[in-house]
Amino acid sequence: MANKDQIDDKVVGVIGSGSFATAIVKMLTENCKVVHWCVRNEFVKGAIELRHHNPTYLTAVNFNVKNLAITTNVNELVSACDIVVLATPSIYLSESLDKMTCDYSGKMFVSAIKGIVPKVNDVVANYLHDEFKIDFKNQAVIAGPCHAEEVAMERLSYLTIASTAENQKILHDLFSSHFIKVNSSCDVMGNEYSAILKNIYAIGAGIASGLGYGDNFTAVFVTNAIREMEVFLEGIHETPRDVNESAYLGDLLVTAYSLFSRNRNLGNLIGKGYTVKSAIQSMNMIAEGYYAADSIYKTSKDKKLKTPIIDIIYSILYEEKNAEKQYKKLTGILN
Amino acid sequence: MANKDQIDDKVVGVIGSGSFATAIVKMLTENCKVVHWCVRNEFVKGAIELRHHNPTYLTAVNFNVKNLAITTNVNELVSACDIVVLATPSIYLSESLDKMTCDYSGKMFVSAIKGIVPKVNDVVANYLHDEFKIDFKNQAVIAGPCHAEEVAMERLSYLTIASTAENQKILHDLFSSHFIKVNSSCDVMGNEYSAILKNIYAIGAGIASGLGYGDNFTAVFVTNAIREMEVFLEGIHETPRDVNESAYLGDLLVTAYSLFSRNRNLGNLIGKGYTVKSAIQSMNMIAEGYYAADSIYKTSKDKKLKTPIIDIIYSILYEEKNAEKQYKKLTGILN
Repeated sequence: MANKDQIDDKVVGVIGSGSFATAIVKMLTENCKVVHWCVRNEFVKGAIELRHHNPTYLTAVNFNVKNLAITTNVNELVSACDIVVLATPSIYLSESLDKMTCDYSGKMFVSAIKGIVPKVNDVVANYLHDEFKIDFKNQAVIAGPCHAEEVAMERLSYLTIASTAENQKILHDLFSSHFIKVNSSCDVMGNEYSAILKNIYAIGAGIASGLGYGDNFTAVFVTNAIREMEVFLEGIHETPRDVNESAYLGDLLVTAYSLFSRNRNLGNLIGKGYTVKSAIQSMNMIAEGYYAADSIYKTSKDKKLKTPIIDIIYSILYEEKNAEKQYKKLTGILN
Repeated sequence: MANKDQIDDKVVGVIGSGSFATAIVKMLTENCKVVHWCVRNEFVKGAIELRHHNPTYLTAVNFNVKNLAITTNVNELVSACDIVVLATPSIYLSESLDKMTCDYSGKMFVSAIKGIVPKVNDVVANYLHDEFKIDFKNQAVIAGPCHAEEVAMERLSYLTIASTAENQKILHDLFSSHFIKVNSSCDVMGNEYSAILKNIYAIGAGIASGLGYGDNFTAVFVTNAIREMEVFLEGIHETPRDVNESAYLGDLLVTAYSLFSRNRNLGNLIGKGYTVKSAIQSMNMIAEGYYAADSIYKTSKDKKLKTPIIDIIYSILYEEKNAEKQYKKLTGILN
């Protein structure tokens, strides 16, 4: 499927060692002779080299370590690569990139991060542009629907990769394989925001489930959520866009409905009566939607957008409002 | 919530004794002093009168039989009522209505049937109009997302009722209660077709699941299905319509994702390798989508619509095509 000649010209690396980073390395090893991989620390590096799998995430994915160039040094990775995929949790991104002192001009940065960078309270694309002067034309965004756990099992998944038109073919060929199909898009900003929004709505779907609402309600909730997402995306970046494409609605569905979704699980715990703090503590993975809700809520207010679902979820997560009462209110707003 | 005076003016009845019919009788007893109910036979009538619940479907729903006027005679029911809700499986509708010899002029017929009438191979609205000369302005359609099982549990559900503008208020008030919220719509034909189409797509989602496709794929499948539904509805009846409203997308989601969905379950069995015939035989409820697929496929071909998902499902259900091979083909069409 992939054009080997073109791909072999490009050196590709991944920063991050969580489950989605591991899934992306797996995808890339289908097409690249060597994938550079910058992991969190020497323990993770050593464990992968010794055991041939990530010691903590997607442990069932076995790598041929001859195809990997593992490092813990971000400069080593960036210097070696033409294309750098960022796949850390959003809260750890600046910790990694602040160490980047090498020359990265002209390199392509592909964000697989679905969250807000806390340091600047902004999306990754703006963070890379404002803090690192990385031109938007050298940026791309990978959107779902794509649970890492299913990539690990080689279950057929469709990625959407948003970039400038010139970069679409190389990115398509890099990621396409017998278990990955790639849709191309030009809506970098829309894909980035929708990937963030869907995590917040997934928390909302989880809260509904935890409170005892059923499938009928969840369907209405998700249906209202996709319409609200459209309002938000139009408010942020107006462009011809069909929110019923896989990157928007599909990603929302997989996150709101799947039991793999950590955001949904966080919401479920809150709905069941856990405090927000204890719900977060009880999970061993980061629910991006929690951090995103704060920033997205404020953006919505700044732009004077009508986003009642986000408002309600924010009030539960950050204003200690009672989930049951807030959802009672929400039921009168949805339709 | 409901306007009792207005409702008390209207006598309401339900034809059918399956699970959705039983759920509708339950909804109506929230607002009506007496609900007329035409059930399948004397056994069902006697069982409800004696045990206060339907002997076969939604057996947990207890009725106060003083609020019910149960009959097995369709003429008795129609003669007594101003508003007749049709809630039989579509394949049994003509069996009931063929016996209707009483005067039914001016009465309102509300279809809660989500299927094609085999006798005329057409939707209920057209069947009532063509065979019984029931004016479209005296017709309404109840759409979901609304699994009967959750209504039985009084879990909050949102119905959409499509009718002429004049009838919207009375229908809204008739069905609204502490567990039912009603959206009103004027798109009778769109609601009727979408309720039918979603059953076919739910079979498709079930086939995917049975074949071993995961959540990532299902999200893409459903996302493509709502876009295809929009194409179909536009081809049948062009009108301003947002398919991301609850009656369309919401109903599709609840049917494609819920374990209560018999259509999804039928597809799942076929995906797992059952023959279509044995899969149908192993279910004790009717999967409307099976019968609908035949008619909808032909309509799509007649109208020259581009509906690749319906085409693939039809080929599996009616042309003995191999599900695994057909889905392999489908994966190349979806995006």
